Order: sequence, then structure tokens, then C-alpha cells
Amino acid sequence: MSSHRFAVNVTPKPGILDPQGRAVEGSLGHLGIDGVSAVRVGRRVELTVDAADPSTARAVVERLAGELLSNPLIEAYAIEELGGVPA
Amino acid sequence: MSSHRFAVNVTPKPGILDPQGRAVEGSLGHLGIDGVSAVRVGRRVELTVDAADPSTARAVVERLAGELLSNPLIEAYAIEELGGVPA
Repeated sequence: MSSHRFAVNVTPKPGILDPQGRAVEGSLGHLGIDGVSAVRVGRRVELTVDAADPSTARAVVERLAGELLSNPLIEAYAIEELGGVPA
Repeated sequence: MSSHRFAVNVTPKPGILDPQGRAVEGSLGHLGIDGVSAVRVGRRVELTVDAADPSTARAVVERLAGELLSNPLIEAYAIEELGGVPA
């Protein structure tokens, strides 16, 4: 049994309207920032999984990402392994 | 002038209450998922910067991350370079 730390990055799928991204783009002018485009705002969920081995831990994260953390109709997710957690 | 794609990961600072993280943990039982802990929910913002060189582009992202995308009192951010964008 060991602990594994993962991140799940959830982003709006291409073509899906992203009002938060538009809001960020709309604020750039006020800050005097130029040259920024294609802003997409999503979520990042970090979590620790206790499992017998890394592949079991990853399977848990896959299930969680698809069933709870993202809406598969409009969002895509990517799983990132952040490495082991010291006991 | 070239385009650079970055991600800014914004997470609640350690010790700061994270109600979304607690909500995810509270849902795990309903899904029959075991062994998941320390869930932290933050934001992930992906964006493209047009700049003369990578270090100028990164400076723009640093400013944006600190002034617009995060609340430095309660959130930490990390910048990730996603690589060049084909013209």
C-alpha cells in the first residue's frame, strides 16, 4: 500500500463556449497586457490515492475524473502523476 | 515574434479552507471509491502569448497569474510551459 499524488486537469472541449475565458480576455486591456489570446479556463483537482500499486491508483483517478470531476459532454480531462507521497 | 502556450495552475494555499475539495471527498462514498484523500480543487487557465522571445512571454504570464488569475492571499499559482504554437 502506498500513496500517490495526482492532478486532474479539466478543460472545456474545443468549440465549447468558455465565458470565464472571455472574461479574462476582456480584462487584459485594463491591465495594459497585450498579445494574449485563446484563454481557456478549467479546473485543476489534486488528490492523494492509497493503493497497492501505481496502476491501481491511476485506475481510481480515471474513474473519478470521468464520473465526478468532469462533464464528458463539454469537458476533457488529462491526468498528471505528481509522484509518490512520503509516508 | 512567436506564440507560446502556457498553463497557470491556481490552487488554494495549504491551510486555506477548500469547500469544493470537501464536496468531492463527500461524494466518494456514493461512488464506492475508497482510499482517496487530500482533495484540493483549483483552477487551470491555458493561454497563448505572442512575444518576441520565451522569457518575455513568461513575464507576461507571471504578471497575469499574480494580478488577475489568482488571489495571492489565499491561492498559490504555478506556471507550466506547454510549448510553442504552430503558426
